[in-house]
Amino acid sequence: MFDEEKYDDLYEEIRKLIEDKNYARIRDLLADMEPADIAALFEEFPPDEFTLLFRLLPKLSAAEVFVEMDSDMQMALVEGFSDAELGYVVDKLFVDDTVDIIEEMPANIVKRILAQATPQKRQMINQLLHYPKDSAGSIMTTEFVELRPEMTVAEAFARIRETGLKKETIYTCYVTDKERHLIGVVTVKDMIIAGNDATIADTMETSIVSVNTHDDKEDVARSMDKYDFLAIPVTDKENRLVGIVTFDDAMDVISEEDTEDIEKMAAILPSDKPYLKTSPFEIWKKRIPWLLLLMVSATFTGQIISSFEEKLAALSVLIAYIPMLMDTGGNSGSQASVTVIRGLSLGDISFSDFFRVVWNEMRVSVLCGATLAAANFVKLLLVDRLLFGNDELTLPVIAVICTTLVVTVFLAKLVGATLPMLAEKIGFDPAVMASPFITTIVDALSLLVYFQFTRMILKI
Amino acid sequence: MFDEEKYDDLYEEIRKLIEDKNYARIRDLLADMEPADIAALFEEFPPDEFTLLFRLLPKLSAAEVFVEMDSDMQMALVEGFSDAELGYVVDKLFVDDTVDIIEEMPANIVKRILAQATPQKRQMINQLLHYPKDSAGSIMTTEFVELRPEMTVAEAFARIRETGLKKETIYTCYVTDKERHLIGVVTVKDMIIAGNDATIADTMETSIVSVNTHDDKEDVARSMDKYDFLAIPVTDKENRLVGIVTFDDAMDVISEEDTEDIEKMAAILPSDKPYLKTSPFEIWKKRIPWLLLLMVSATFTGQIISSFEEKLAALSVLIAYIPMLMDTGGNSGSQASVTVIRGLSLGDISFSDFFRVVWNEMRVSVLCGATLAAANFVKLLLVDRLLFGNDELTLPVIAVICTTLVVTVFLAKLVGATLPMLAEKIGFDPAVMASPFITTIVDALSLLVYFQFTRMILKI
Repeated sequence: MFDEEKYDDLYEEIRKLIEDKNYARIRDLLADMEPADIAALFEEFPPDEFTLLFRLLPKLSAAEVFVEMDSDMQMALVEGFSDAELGYVVDKLFVDDTVDIIEEMPANIVKRILAQATPQKRQMINQLLHYPKDSAGSIMTTEFVELRPEMTVAEAFARIRETGLKKETIYTCYVTDKERHLIGVVTVKDMIIAGNDATIADTMETSIVSVNTHDDKEDVARSMDKYDFLAIPVTDKENRLVGIVTFDDAMDVISEEDTEDIEKMAAILPSDKPYLKTSPFEIWKKRIPWLLLLMVSATFTGQIISSFEEKLAALSVLIAYIPMLMDTGGNSGSQASVTVIRGLSLGDISFSDFFRVVWNEMRVSVLCGATLAAANFVKLLLVDRLLFGNDELTLPVIAVICTTLVVTVFLAKLVGATLPMLAEKIGFDPAVMASPFITTIVDALSLLVYFQFTRMILKI
Repeated sequence: MFDEEKYDDLYEEIRKLIEDKNYARIRDLLADMEPADIAALFEEFPPDEFTLLFRLLPKLSAAEVFVEMDSDMQMALVEGFSDAELGYVVDKLFVDDTVDIIEEMPANIVKRILAQATPQKRQMINQLLHYPKDSAGSIMTTEFVELRPEMTVAEAFARIRETGLKKETIYTCYVTDKERHLIGVVTVKDMIIAGNDATIADTMETSIVSVNTHDDKEDVARSMDKYDFLAIPVTDKENRLVGIVTFDDAMDVISEEDTEDIEKMAAILPSDKPYLKTSPFEIWKKRIPWLLLLMVSATFTGQIISSFEEKLAALSVLIAYIPMLMDTGGNSGSQASVTVIRGLSLGDISFSDFFRVVWNEMRVSVLCGATLAAANFVKLLLVDRLLFGNDELTLPVIAVICTTLVVTVFLAKLVGATLPMLAEKIGFDPAVMASPFITTIVDALSLLVYFQFTRMILKI
């Protein structure tokens, strides 16, 4: 693998070679590298130098490197390209990659790119641009190998040899009838094993798992993970084959969706750029909405304390345990909510499991609450009261703190587990029901419980 | 795709068919399904019924279904199997899957499984069982197609036809010399395009990205995602080829590692079972350690409040804003920490970016702090003071609250961003430095800042 050090060394070496104008040596160095590594290396250079470096790439791999670059670099390159150079790169790009690139570019550059595409490719690009942002259609490619049932394996290989270079994967081929309805799937492995004379109709698998253009791309990616598919066919409403999603795009979707969920769980609006490429202002825009909202909602917690102020002043030892109760409640709640959110997005949990989840969490919360209360009882009595001599900590006060803990943990786990499921049910994203949101609710709950027990047990 | 409804219908149908002893019809129904779906469906049945159902599967797909089951079901099946049945399944299992299964089984069942494997397979299994838990060796398979450089493409295809059925992937083949050193990689696509008479030496790619048996499995999976590889070769210290990791296992690793990170971020010890399969007692064991630890550390926050009790009693309006300050600090800190943790695990951020990250967060925190303070100022003045007539909210008190907010957000973002990087540097898992941990630290910090400003501005 490519580590940071090897990388820095290479950077220095190429710097020197550029100064010496020893381009032949640079070409040799780059020839042995993976496109993703070349793109990452180029990023270190200023625009004029990476344009120079880009031109040193063998023509065939130039398009692969181009795909791996970030959109700022792509834009700088396209602006420096002649029409012929741009045409060459566009010709070698896969349709789905071209669409991804176009979506990030300003209109004038999109126009230049489309002008260089063949009419057929332009039509495919336009088709893909029309699918909704999170749909299977938006991540599929239209470049797949299509076979007919009456072909022999030898004919199929001939077809692959002819058109395969331009296809994203040749290993799973799709068999269609004259109306382009998907009727079978056949792998190169099956064909090699069946031998040249077998027909595709005899070799193909007819029980097919396919998805629809409008299915959610995360569901599609998770299914591919579940079934270990290299590619999955995408059909339209009439069951006509319109594209395929390949494993590499599915892997990207899984990784992106996980990042998005993690960001939402931490009260950040999802962003699609790596952290170090995002300006402080953009980061601020992603973080401030939730911070403001949660700040305002935390005011209610303050209000609850205010309304109890006089009584707290009378027995001020109670104030010292507020952070512990609020934090423990918040942590208990976020454990439950994050577990349920992850279960929902992996498909381990669905809304129909509502009561099983609730029953599970009830039992877990009793176990957790009892353990925490016991530990707390011992600590309050032995450490806070006997060791530090805090005489205000009478047994009734300790009882208030411990019972509050048990009830708070119980409520926190219930709220934490149910809110994400309810959110999913009414079509909201469950991930926003994670820690910060739950914490705010649980804060208020724990204080209400605390003051209620204070009233009941201490009679103040 | 397979949705819940279709699933329930199928369950009912098969229930009825079992009662009617109409096994032929069940066999037909199962023949069209994916192994992962069959395994999920079988889960709904009691052990004696799913053993019956399992025996209805065509022999070839029985092993594939077996792999997809959870370990309790596998154990129940193995216990009911005759040696011949077990032998048949073990023979069809891939080596890496066998190892995964064995790792979950009690010793007596492992012995039975190993007794059914061929001596050669037993040796491979033992080899794989020796690699460390998170290494590339532990997820690789030893079943790949190995070619020699002097072969022609036709000979290579003949080799694939002979041995391919038993290999996890045939699409990327590995070229080795007599000492099994890896000297090239060749894809079936390249071979089809090169034609039958080309030699492997002329067709193969000699610049190879490979990993070492002891490399971390997450790094390996992320590299495969980055490079869009179908499989990656794994070599030992002497660069001898010992196995390959395929994309389906890489996808599983990515999904598992993300789940683990998410769990750690929510203060849960990672578990490897789906939520609904985990007993409340097991869930409790995963959640209680962090809850206890964080509860005890929240005590320090309480101690800080205690030490300030008298002064708070004098100006009790200050108490009402403690939750807002603590929550906002906690949220700001976890935004930064979660962003950095995710960046670290995706490889977008490394320790060498330390000062860039700190500088970034400093600017973001100034923006966030200023916005929050401004919003808060307006709210305190217009809503709390004018609208609700809270006269204790004098301008100096408001100044204390707003300056505390700015400083807390600044400190929270710094602590949140730096702790995960420092953890990574000293070999700790950065994910445990997420929300709950940061919150506990930031709670204490925000109170210290609050009381400091109270002293300085209000002179009490």
